[in-house]
This record gives sequence, C-alpha cells and structure tokens, in this order.
Amino acid sequence: MDKILEKVNSPEDLKELNIKEKEQLAKEIRENIINTVSVTGGHLASNLGVTELTIALHSIFDTPKDKIVWDVGHQTYVHKILTGRKDKMDTLRQLGGISGFPKIKESEYDSFDTGHSSTSISVALGMARARDIQKEDNNVIAVIGDGALTGGMALEALNDAGNSKTKLIVILNDNEMSISKNVGGISQFLTKLRTRKFYKKSNNSIRKTLEKTPKIGTKIIRIARRVKYSLKQLFLPNMFFEDLGFKYLGPVDGHDIERLEWILKLAKKEQEPVLVHAITKKGKGYKPAEENPDRFHATGSFEIETGKPNKEKKKDYSAVFGEKLVKLANNNEKIVAITAAMTDGTGLKEFKEKYPNRFFDVGIAEQHAIGLAAGLAKAGLKPVVPIYSSFYQRAYDQVIHDICIENMPVVLCVDRAGIVGNDGETHQGLLDLAFFNIVPNLTIMAPKDFKELEDMLEYAITLNSPVVIRYPRGGENEQVKFEKHEEIIKGKAEIIKEGKDISIISIGKMVEKGMKMVEQLEKQGKSVELINARFLKPFDEEKIIETITKTKNVITIEDASIVGGLGTKVKEIIAENKLENVNLQCYAYPDKFIEARKRWRIRRKIFIKKLAVFPS
Amino acid sequence: MDKILEKVNSPEDLKELNIKEKEQLAKEIRENIINTVSVTGGHLASNLGVTELTIALHSIFDTPKDKIVWDVGHQTYVHKILTGRKDKMDTLRQLGGISGFPKIKESEYDSFDTGHSSTSISVALGMARARDIQKEDNNVIAVIGDGALTGGMALEALNDAGNSKTKLIVILNDNEMSISKNVGGISQFLTKLRTRKFYKKSNNSIRKTLEKTPKIGTKIIRIARRVKYSLKQLFLPNMFFEDLGFKYLGPVDGHDIERLEWILKLAKKEQEPVLVHAITKKGKGYKPAEENPDRFHATGSFEIETGKPNKEKKKDYSAVFGEKLVKLANNNEKIVAITAAMTDGTGLKEFKEKYPNRFFDVGIAEQHAIGLAAGLAKAGLKPVVPIYSSFYQRAYDQVIHDICIENMPVVLCVDRAGIVGNDGETHQGLLDLAFFNIVPNLTIMAPKDFKELEDMLEYAITLNSPVVIRYPRGGENEQVKFEKHEEIIKGKAEIIKEGKDISIISIGKMVEKGMKMVEQLEKQGKSVELINARFLKPFDEEKIIETITKTKNVITIEDASIVGGLGTKVKEIIAENKLENVNLQCYAYPDKFIEARKRWRIRRKIFIKKLAVFPS
Repeated sequence: MDKILEKVNSPEDLKELNIKEKEQLAKEIRENIINTVSVTGGHLASNLGVTELTIALHSIFDTPKDKIVWDVGHQTYVHKILTGRKDKMDTLRQLGGISGFPKIKESEYDSFDTGHSSTSISVALGMARARDIQKEDNNVIAVIGDGALTGGMALEALNDAGNSKTKLIVILNDNEMSISKNVGGISQFLTKLRTRKFYKKSNNSIRKTLEKTPKIGTKIIRIARRVKYSLKQLFLPNMFFEDLGFKYLGPVDGHDIERLEWILKLAKKEQEPVLVHAITKKGKGYKPAEENPDRFHATGSFEIETGKPNKEKKKDYSAVFGEKLVKLANNNEKIVAITAAMTDGTGLKEFKEKYPNRFFDVGIAEQHAIGLAAGLAKAGLKPVVPIYSSFYQRAYDQVIHDICIENMPVVLCVDRAGIVGNDGETHQGLLDLAFFNIVPNLTIMAPKDFKELEDMLEYAITLNSPVVIRYPRGGENEQVKFEKHEEIIKGKAEIIKEGKDISIISIGKMVEKGMKMVEQLEKQGKSVELINARFLKPFDEEKIIETITKTKNVITIEDASIVGGLGTKVKEIIAENKLENVNLQCYAYPDKFIEARKRWRIRRKIFIKKLAVFPS
Repeated sequence: MDKILEKVNSPEDLKELNIKEKEQLAKEIRENIINTVSVTGGHLASNLGVTELTIALHSIFDTPKDKIVWDVGHQTYVHKILTGRKDKMDTLRQLGGISGFPKIKESEYDSFDTGHSSTSISVALGMARARDIQKEDNNVIAVIGDGALTGGMALEALNDAGNSKTKLIVILNDNEMSISKNVGGISQFLTKLRTRKFYKKSNNSIRKTLEKTPKIGTKIIRIARRVKYSLKQLFLPNMFFEDLGFKYLGPVDGHDIERLEWILKLAKKEQEPVLVHAITKKGKGYKPAEENPDRFHATGSFEIETGKPNKEKKKDYSAVFGEKLVKLANNNEKIVAITAAMTDGTGLKEFKEKYPNRFFDVGIAEQHAIGLAAGLAKAGLKPVVPIYSSFYQRAYDQVIHDICIENMPVVLCVDRAGIVGNDGETHQGLLDLAFFNIVPNLTIMAPKDFKELEDMLEYAITLNSPVVIRYPRGGENEQVKFEKHEEIIKGKAEIIKEGKDISIISIGKMVEKGMKMVEQLEKQGKSVELINARFLKPFDEEKIIETITKTKNVITIEDASIVGGLGTKVKEIIAENKLENVNLQCYAYPDKFIEARKRWRIRRKIFIKKLAVFPS
C-alpha cells in the first residue's frame, strides 16, 4: 500500500480520507516524527500526544482561514507536517530550516508565534473579537495543555473569554502533565473529570439521520442538546469551566479520530465560548516515550530502538546548582526551593527527593513562585528560586514589588541565561542582565565556571537582601580551566590576569571567551589584562577605572544584549569619569531577537569576526 | 458616652468590647476616616467597606502573631487605626507620615508591603508554609477583593494553595467592583453565589451551649459540620473554589460583626485552606461614596457634607489621551482600546461609551490585556492599551513575547510614568523607560505637553510596529508654554532652542523643567541649547553628538530612574564616539525605591538642588 502521508500535502487533502486512512496517517506521521527527532533532537512526547488531535482539527476546520493558536507551540510538528512542511522536517531547528515552534514568517498556517506557556487563549480571544468587529466568519481555536492552564495569563483569559459570549473554541489537551507532573487544584479537579465516562457518541447515528433533513433536523438536535445540557447542569452545576462561562464538552478520547471529529463539529456549531476536554497521552505510540515522557519532552538525538540518547549528557550548570543546593541545605534548614514546573530542568530533582517538605513545585506560575518566595522569606526562611531567564520576564513585577521593595532575602537563580540555541527567539536569555540591573536593592552575579557558581550560591545564601545569580545553559568549555578562585566579596571583580595593553572585561560564561581572546591577542604580542567582573551590581567601578586608565584599550564581552548590560556599565563609567581617548569594543548580542541555531554558530558570528579588527 | 475609639489602642483592647460597642466603634472609625481623607485625600470607599471586617479580624485573630496580608493594601486605614496609629491618621500619605499602604517598616502589624493587586494569596501561602516548616502555630489570613481575584497571580496562587492542604484563610472581600465594575466569568459566578442566602448563624446558640462542655461539644460540632458539608457538597458539587481545593464558607454579610466573628472562628478551626466569602459595600456609611464608589475610590480632599472635591480636577494627560483617541477612532474603525480595570483612570470613559464594541475591559489582568492586543493586532486591528507604568511590569513578558517578537502594531500607552507622589514606592513609574528600552523592535516616545501627546498618538497609529508612549500623572505645568510643535519624525529630536554654552537634553514631562533651567542658566549669562529628545528609541544620536560636540557641557533630565534611561543613552554616545572633555550632569531619580511624598517635593529634592553647582 502506498503511504497515505505521501498524498497529504495540505489540510485540503485530509478531506479525501476516511477514518481508517486517517488512523493510518497518524501512524505514518508518528514514524516520521520519531525518525526526525531521533536525528535533529527536539520535542517528542508532546507531538506524539497530539497526532490524532491535529489530524482531526485540520479535518474539521478550514485552515488557514480558521485560526489555530498552539499554546507553547512545541507540539506543532504534526501541524507542520500536515501543512506543507513534511519535506523540510529534516531541517527542524537547524540553521535555515523550520522552527520547532509556530512562526508567522514560516507559514500562513502558523497563525501566531508561541514559545512561552499560557498565551493562547488571550491571543485567540483577540483574533475572535477582531473577527466579530470586522464581520468575518472564521473559527478561532486555542489548543492548550493542562499544564499551561495553571499559568495566570491563561486563567485571566479564561475569565475574560468565558463571559464574553464570543464564539471561541478552547481545546484542553489534557495529558496529566506539562513538563513535570502537574500540580495544584486545577489538576486535581481535572483528575476528577477524567474519571467520568467519555463524552458519548452514541447519538451520533441519530444525529446523522436527522441532519439529512437540515432545518428541522438541526433544530431538533439543538433542542435535544439543550435538554442534555439541562440535565448535565442538574448533575454538574457550577463546574469550574462553566462557572467561568464556558460550555464544556468532554472528556473525549484524544486518540480516537472519529470521536474527536464528532465533538469538534459540535464545538464548531456553538456561538459561544466552548471548552473541549480531550484526554491524550504524552509519547503515545512510542514506548520509550510513553514510559518516560519527561525524558522525551525535549530530547537530543537518540537511538530509536532503545530510546537511548546518542550522546551522554554532560554535567551542566543546572546540575551543579542542584548538587550544591542540596549540600548547603544539609547544613541549613532555612533553605527552601521553589520551581515553576521545572524540577528536572533546573536541577532540583535531588533536592525534591531529599527535602520534600522544603520543596515547592507551583506549576507553570512564575508570578506566584516569586510571591510565594516573598512570603517564605518574610517568615524567616531562605528561598532559592531557579527559573529560566526568559521566563523570569513573567515574574518581573513580582521581583520588583514583592522581593526588592521589601528587600527580601531571596536567591533568584537565572538559569538558561544567554544564548540557548535551537529553541530560538522566545527562549534566548539575553535580557535579564539589563532588566534586573535597573531594579533597586538587587545584587547581581554571574559565575565564570562551576566552582564559582558554587561559591556564589554559598555566598548568596548569607546575604540579607535579594540576589540574582545568572548562569547559562550547558556546561563549562572544557578547553578552558580556571586555576584561581578568589573569595567572593560583594561588588569586587577578580583580576584573572594582569596586563598593560588591553583590558578585557567579562562576566559569567564569557570569561571563558575572554581567556581565549587573551591567547589570541598575546600571540599578536599584546599584554592583556583579563577581568572577571563577577558582580554586575554593585559594579566594581574602582577596578574598572583603574584598568581602563592603564590600558586605554577595552574589550567588554558578555552573553547578553548589547543594551543595558556590562558594556553599558563600562560606557557609563567612561563618560561619568571623563576617561579620555579610550578605544572600546563591546561584544554582545545585537538589539534584536536572535533566531534558532546552534549556540557556537551564534557566538562565532557575533564575537569572533569582530575581534580581528581590534585593536588596530 | 465616651468615644469607644479613645479606649482602643491596640487589637488587644477589642477583646474587651461587646458586639454593640464594636458596632459603635465601627461608626467612630468611619467618621475618623471620612474626616481624615476629606483633608489628606486617599482611598476612601474601600476603607469604609472593610470597617466591620477589619474589626472582626482583629477580634478573632491574635495579631501580630497571626498575620494578615492585605491585597493591594489601600484598604488598611481601619487596620492602621486599630493597631496603634489612630493618632497619626492626619499624617496619612504625607511626608514623614504614615503610608496609605501597609509597610513592614511602619508597624509589626503590617505583615507585608502591598500596592499592586493580586499578590496576597501567594505571600500568605508562603508565610503559612514557612510556619509549618518551622513548626509554629500562627494563623495566616489573606484579604483579597473580588476585583483582585481576576489577576493571574491570585489565580495561580489559588491553584497552588487549594491543593496544598496548608492551613490558610483567604477572605474574599466581595464588593462587586475593584476600581471599575468587575468583569469576567469569575465575577458572573460570584454574582450567582451572592444571591444565595447568607451563611446561616442560626445554629450559633446551639453551638455556644455545646462549647461549654468543650471536648464532647467540639466533637459534636465537628460531626454536625461534616454533615452540613456533605449536604452542601450534594447540592453544590464542584463549585469553583471547592474545585480548586478550598473549603468555602459563605456568603456572609460583611457588615454584620457578629456573623463575621462567628464565621471567622469557624475558619480558624479548619486545618486546610478555607475561603470565607464576605459581601461588603464600597463606601458603606457615607452616602456620597455609596452612591459613587468610583469617584471615592481614590480622592483628593473634599467637602464632607456634599462629597464635592475641594479642587476641581484639572485636565490631565490621561484625559487628553482619551479625547484624542476618540477623535482618531471616529475616522479609523481599526482602532480598538483595552483597559485592565482602569477605564476612568486611563481616560477611556468616552471611548467606552462611544465605541462599546471596540472597547475591552479585561479586569485586573495586564498579562491577558497584552495577549489580547496581540491577537487583535494579528487579525488586522490597531489596539491601544493604556496601563499605568508600574503595572506594565506585570505584562513585561507579554510585551516581549507576544508583541515585540512578532513585531505586532500595538500602541502601548504608559500612563502614570515618572514620579506619582503620594502612593509611594509601589506606584512610582520610574523604570519603564529602562525596561522597555532593552526590548528589540520597540519605538519609545514621550511627549513634552498635551499637544505633543496628541501628535504622538496620531503618529503611533500609523506605525506598523509596536510603540510605547509614556506620559505622566497630572497635567502640564501652566507656567511653561511651548509654542513650537514640529512634525513627529521617527527617531528625530526637536531643538526647542539653540545655544552654544550648555546643552540640555530632556524628554517628556521634563522638557518643562528644561525650559525652567534655560531661564535660570541664561540669567547667569549662559547660552543654552534645549533639546526635546522625543524618542528614546530610536535615539537621535546625530543631533546629540552635534550638540555635545558644540557645547561640551551637557545636562540630561528625565522623569525616570538614573539607570538605563536617557542619561545612560547619552553616556553611551559619549563613550562610543570618544567625545572628549565633556562635562555631564544627569538629573534623574536615584537607583532606589522612592517613598511617598508630594511630587514637587521629590522633584525639588533631586533636581533643583544640584543645578546650583553646574556648570562650574
């Protein structure tokens, strides 16, 4: 038999297929994705979980006229395959290839860019309201996981949408987990719902018969449905989603294409906000992923038969952080840890196991994570909160309002700071140095290597005020070894190497790069001074002024945006102190969003090329 | 009869009073607050609404050992009166006086600083968890309005708390409005609850009898209560709060001290998260405020008899914005407006009345407001979103992730930018210039006067990319008139006056101050050039380099933090372009949180004093 997938080049082609063929198609798509991701790496489990759902959506709705907004967006591989990109799957997440997330620029079927969690209902509601204002008639569908539903933005949107009377479909893709196992009251409540019988399709055949005599038929259906609703209301009044103003349809088996199509048709006919509750299984159809969806949430390349990664994971900053925190917690019972649904990603697994009572996973809820930390700190504990750099943007107000105004001693660990690589624009951690630098009362540090991260964490715990430690994705550069680790003293930079011609001022991960620059420049006969700033705030102005005055040739280098970070600080010092005749080159990322590609490619493009022209 | 209030110097004294006396006390406290606020200005309606609730809380709970976390915090005047600060009420919101919000520094009874909405449940849960970890036994109570409950942070916290099994009391102070009338599904749902009978106190007398034989008594009560819950569960299964894992008690009349005390005692005995639903009336006991709670949410001084303000409100930037937006919308049906529960405050009242279908009040939900704008923009409309500067911090990630990465043409209007005065640290709008400046794709403007705000708004609507316009609280300085209004051209500064000795570079509201500086300096015989930067981004480097090169004496002046704004940009230009021998003075606010006091006092303290010493 010919492969069905070969015949499917756009959602239009789905309309020709019967259910059996679609089931076969689902199988072929799964194979394609497993093959692809086993080579390119990427998000696997979530895509295997939505295969049937995506086929059903594109069968029932008329995309791209109808708009599907994918929450988070890492579950759009099936969608990409169905919308004309199946031949590009081998370029997934590669330079010049297709993105691992929906991208407006990539396809008219990608109705909105996502990457962060919990945005889809807001965006979809906006599109639906715009449709009504402009008197258009397309459908708008938000597809959101149960994990993302714990994010405040999604809940705010549910609240607004529910009462809006706007025609809008929210598909709750309920797989009982986001990245870690889900937590919280909503999750508990969904578990209750899940145990209910699947939404019955038994009256489907009656329905079909009735629909043949359209006008009367649909009226009867409507009445029948109303009766059904009334009954449901009687037995399930004030259910969470209905309290919020949504019609609730479900639960439905999210791997049964026929039932999915049937319930989506029902949803499509509603003129009000409706929530379709589909139960899916992460990793569905690939045993290693079904058994270990965490491991296959985001994966590097792997061996298909066993599921084993091709490369052993090297020790990274997150792991070093996690280990050190456990050691510190062994001797300090005040230490508590908070994660926003990223226990493994942030290295907290061991802490969680060892100190379950001092560990809090709040779900995808960065705002609350920081508010919670504030309360814990006020009551005398020492909270440590690792969150990825780009997700700290979600808790910006809380860091200012609940931590820094009150000067609460909370340790804010900014993981995945700097360029992260293949996840692209939404996940790059390039802004944190700048947006934290402007907040009063904060101390900001970044370590040059694992050992310095340990030292900084130990030091941070002793502070009686809020402190940021930022560190990158991945590990140390093995070609660079730092022998010296001076004591951490507030606001003091570390001089790694003295010199008299050129000053390299660097911070965090980029001190490694500074070491390599030293090598290169010394080969050219220059005497180079290398400074590890350590603290962005308070900044060691004294040492910086001294070195600039001495060499008059300054290079700054940071794993952050060119705006507002280390380079800016040095420029300010030059202007404020009237340091004259200073040659300055700042290596950092340009003031734009950086697309997905390998980290070394990005770094090389920006840092290395320029070096050749300096100093002249 | 002696005044009861005279005898009450701390919550301890409440324990001596019977219900009748407490009712009298409530009356006296209301008088005190009305008298105070009629002179000092402040938040009136919300405080009149929680008078009985506050008395009941301090009667039943053992503060400060028990912790009350007041959401938003502008409703703490009664609390302040009861906790030893009644004699300082005349200093409310004044320099050296007591704050209009809870302040840890001010009293041990103020368990946490608030100001922004929706933080209380997170913070309270943190305190409760810390209590359990440290094996203490105090109660923790969050008091939150129904408006604040629509904020994502509060919903995230409800989700976490509900499933936590932690002993925690949340008082829902339900007055059917936050600042504007509430919106959304939760609000609708609460309306349904409100129509239920008040939680019956009928079994109170039985209870009292039973409690006299403590052990058996409380056991019977517990059983009785359990039966009652079971019944309630039967008739009201899956109710919103119970879906989230809270025990629900209510609704209770929030102005009936006896019932409040009774229900709070019930709540206190629970060992799990419990939500007490109290129905209150904003402005209770003062007719003008009952009739017009909006007007008396935050008020200046007023005449007690009539409620009329002592000073007529002058035209402010918000009003100018609102009027101009209506004019633009008359000719452009793409324009839509969004507010996060601040229709009046942001000047959108007329727009709402004239274009109800193009107006969206999303509740206290800044994150969703921006996500919604993104969706509207993607579907072809032109959203305009005025939000106060310090509340834009809440939507920081959404501005980056949903607006700027996709380059969506949304007009972000930053109202209350700069120093706001008496509301203090949490409300100052000093960071927005800096935190927006680091976001790629943004255009950032600030107008020097009303006319320029109109011009900038008109210009912003024509842009096909995201744009920020920031403007201050209040109005123009009437002593300063600008005659010239050049056309707005992207990235171009306006030279208001040419000169050759000193360059003053200014932006927004502070161009007024620049004009006054020009006067002063010219009296000293200097020739001064005054530049209105207009755009912080893109910044008019060419013009700035030119003026600096000419005068070598530069003053920058901005209504923002010294870190990361206009001053920083000028310093960067000086360093990058090796402009030598430049005398520079930057007028801005220091890198710390600025306490409440009148705006002119703050400005004078920071700006004017320094001027005398420059240029030497």
